[in-house]
Amino acid sequence: MSPSASSPAAAQPVGTNGQEPTKTYREMDASTMTTSLVPEAEQLPVPGLQDPGRLTQKLTTAHMVQAPWVAGEGWGPPHMGPYGKIALEPTASVLHYATESFEGMKVYRGYDGKVRLFRPWLNCERMNKSNARVCLPAIDSDQLLAVISKFLAIECRRWLPEPGSHLYLRPATIGSGSALGIQRPPEALFFLFAALFPQSSHEPSPGMRLLASDSDVIRAWPGGFGGSKVGANYGPAMVAQAKARENSCGQTLWLFGEDRQVTEAGASNFFVVWKRKDSDVLELVTASLDTEVILDGITRRSVLDLARQRLTKDSADLPEGFQPVQVVERTFNMDEIVEAQKEGRLIEAFVSGTAMFVMPISEILYDGINVTLPRTVGEDGTKLPVAKYSYTIKTWLSDIMFGKVEHEWAYVIDEN
Amino acid sequence: MSPSASSPAAAQPVGTNGQEPTKTYREMDASTMTTSLVPEAEQLPVPGLQDPGRLTQKLTTAHMVQAPWVAGEGWGPPHMGPYGKIALEPTASVLHYATESFEGMKVYRGYDGKVRLFRPWLNCERMNKSNARVCLPAIDSDQLLAVISKFLAIECRRWLPEPGSHLYLRPATIGSGSALGIQRPPEALFFLFAALFPQSSHEPSPGMRLLASDSDVIRAWPGGFGGSKVGANYGPAMVAQAKARENSCGQTLWLFGEDRQVTEAGASNFFVVWKRKDSDVLELVTASLDTEVILDGITRRSVLDLARQRLTKDSADLPEGFQPVQVVERTFNMDEIVEAQKEGRLIEAFVSGTAMFVMPISEILYDGINVTLPRTVGEDGTKLPVAKYSYTIKTWLSDIMFGKVEHEWAYVIDEN
Repeated sequence: MSPSASSPAAAQPVGTNGQEPTKTYREMDASTMTTSLVPEAEQLPVPGLQDPGRLTQKLTTAHMVQAPWVAGEGWGPPHMGPYGKIALEPTASVLHYATESFEGMKVYRGYDGKVRLFRPWLNCERMNKSNARVCLPAIDSDQLLAVISKFLAIECRRWLPEPGSHLYLRPATIGSGSALGIQRPPEALFFLFAALFPQSSHEPSPGMRLLASDSDVIRAWPGGFGGSKVGANYGPAMVAQAKARENSCGQTLWLFGEDRQVTEAGASNFFVVWKRKDSDVLELVTASLDTEVILDGITRRSVLDLARQRLTKDSADLPEGFQPVQVVERTFNMDEIVEAQKEGRLIEAFVSGTAMFVMPISEILYDGINVTLPRTVGEDGTKLPVAKYSYTIKTWLSDIMFGKVEHEWAYVIDEN
Repeated sequence: MSPSASSPAAAQPVGTNGQEPTKTYREMDASTMTTSLVPEAEQLPVPGLQDPGRLTQKLTTAHMVQAPWVAGEGWGPPHMGPYGKIALEPTASVLHYATESFEGMKVYRGYDGKVRLFRPWLNCERMNKSNARVCLPAIDSDQLLAVISKFLAIECRRWLPEPGSHLYLRPATIGSGSALGIQRPPEALFFLFAALFPQSSHEPSPGMRLLASDSDVIRAWPGGFGGSKVGANYGPAMVAQAKARENSCGQTLWLFGEDRQVTEAGASNFFVVWKRKDSDVLELVTASLDTEVILDGITRRSVLDLARQRLTKDSADLPEGFQPVQVVERTFNMDEIVEAQKEGRLIEAFVSGTAMFVMPISEILYDGINVTLPRTVGEDGTKLPVAKYSYTIKTWLSDIMFGKVEHEWAYVIDEN
C-alpha cells in the first residue's frame, strides 16, 4: 500500500501470525450473507445451453460471492453481488507467493427438475485441507456448503434451467493481504462463481491420448503438496501440458520415480483395468493416496466406491456379461502397463475428474512407445477405445448426479 | 468474464497456445514507456528513512509500472502511473494456478550520491527462466533493465534521497487472463514497484536461529521448480516458516532426502565455513545447483565469486590473520554439520539473499538437537556468533553496492 493510500491492512500490526484472540474470531457464517443482485432485465439471457459452441470456460453467470477474512478477526459476512473484477494490492500475497487454493464442483439440473450437488461435503473438507497447506484460513465446512447452496438457490433458476445440464462451480481462497515477507497472509478472500462449461457428452467417446511425462520433470513429491488443491500444483505443470498438446495428447500422464510410477493424468486421476499376470482375475487399479503425491479426487473415490459395491461377483448390479473386478489401490508403473498390453491383458484405461468426468484413454505415448489400448468399433464404424467398465461407472455416476436414481451422494438445493 | 461484461480477453480464440504469429509479436520495449505521475505536492514526504519503526514491507513509493501482454500480440507499452490496486477477473489464471514469478532486487543510494543496482542483469535473466517455468511470456532482459532504470530515474530522487540507504524493488509477472482450463495464460501482466524496507544494519549481528525442516516436509525436488523464483515455491513453505517462528527461529533450514541434505534456508542460500576432516584446510561450503532444488541466488553467486577471488592464499585482499578458504559447491548434509560441531571444526555459518543480505547463524535446531555455532563476545559483552568470514564478505559486497569502490557488478542509474 502506498503511504498516500489507506486500507484496513495498514491498521494490522506486523507479524500477526498466530495472534488470533479466540473471543472476537468469527467463523464463516452463511446466515449473515447479504445480496445485491443484478436486475433480471440486465442479466443476459442464458446463452443457449443448446449451443455448446458459444460456451467457453470464460463465461460465468451474473453473480459471485465474496467473503473477506482478517487475521485476528476472522470471516466477515459473505456477500453475493454482480460478477466483476477483484481489486488487489500489488503487494498482495497471492500475486507473489501462490497463497491460493480452489475447488472444482459441478451443479446439475436433474431430469426431475431438481438441482443437485455431488458429494459436496468432500469438496468442503478438501478446501480446508488445501487452505491449511498454504497458510490460508479454515472455513467451517457446513457453512461453506450453506454459502454455496444460497448462491445456487438464486443463480440456478436463470442460469441452469435445462434438465440434464450442469454448471461448473469454482470456490477459491486467496491471500489478499499485503505481505511481501514470506509469512501467513494477514488477510484473505473467499470467492465463488459459476462458469458455463461445455456439457459432458453421453455418447461413446473417441477417447483421449496421454503423453507420459519425461523422467526429468516431476509434478509432485512425497512431503510436497500434490495431495492438496493449491495453485502451486498447476502453473508449474503447464509446460508439460503444452507439450502434450503439441503431441496431440489431451493430458500429461504424470510419472514419478526411477521406476516410472503412474500417478495421475493432468488434473485427473488415472485408472487401468487389466487381467492379473498370475490368474484370470480382473483388476481395477489406481495409484494409492499414501504419499500425498496424487489428489484425493472425489470422482476417483466415487469410481472406487461404486466398483467395490457393484462390480463384485455377488452384486445384483453387475451388468450381464461383465466379469467382476477387484479394486486395487497401489503403486504401479509404466512397465506393468506395457507388459500387460504386450501380453494382451490390458482391457481399458480411463481418467476421472470433475471437469473431465470419466474419459476413456485411447493411447499412451511413453518414451517413444505408443501404448495403444484395446479398441472396438462404434455404431458408425469408427474405432473407439474399449470403455465397457468406465462407461458403466460413468452412467451410474451420471444417474446419481441427474437424479435418475435417489442416492445419498446427491445433495438437493432448495430453490424455494 | 460475465456475458454482460466485455474485455479484450473475450476476443481471444480459445486455445491460443503457441499460436503467436511472429509478424505482429511485440517484444517489451522500454522506449515506448508512458508516464502519468502523481503531482509532487500529493506525494507524501519520504516517511523518514531515519525512522525505521515506521517502515514496513507494506509501504511503497508513489508509483508503479505495468505492462500488459496478450498471446499472439506480445507486450504492450509499459506505463508508469500512481501506485494502486490491480483489478483481475475472478477467472484470472494467477488466482487459481499460480502462474506468477517475481524478482527481489535492491536499489542503493551510494555515499557518492549515485543510485546503483547490483548485478541486475542476473535478475533479468532469472525472471525469464522463472517465467518460462510457469508458461509466462519472456521479457527481453535488456528492455526489462531499461524499464526498471526509467522507473528508478524518476522515483529515487524523492524516495531514496539518503546516501547509504536502499529501496526494495519487486518486478513480477502474473497470468492475468481468464483461463479456468489448465493452459498457458492467454494474457499476462508485468508490474514493478518499490517498497520502503527497513535498512540493513552494518553492526555485528546477534545472528539468526534456524529450524531444520522435518523429514516429512519437502520444499523442492529434482525435476520440480525450486530453482525458479515462482510463487509456487513460497506459499507451501509458509507452514514450516510459521513453525520456525513458533520455535523462535528466523527461518526454516530446508533439508532434502533421507540423508537430510542441506539445501537452503527460508528464502536464502545457506553457507558453512568448516575445517576439513582430513586436513587443516578451511572450506566455504554451499549446496550445488545441479538438481535445481535450490535457487541460483545472486548474493549466493557473488559470495562465492568474491571468496574465490579474495579469500585465497595469494590474494592481496585476504585480510590479515585470515586463513584462506577453498570454495566448495556440493551436496552436504546435517550429519556432517553436527560432526564438525562436535569435533570443533565448525567455524561459522551464514545465509545470503537480497532481503536478508548476509546474516550469520547462531544456532540450528535439528531433530531435537541444538547445533550451536561458535560464539565470540561483542563490544558490549553480549555473545555473538563468529562471523569473521561472512562479515568480511558482507562488507565487500556493501562497498560495491554503495559505491565505496568502483566495480563491474554495480549498474549506475542515470537520474538526469
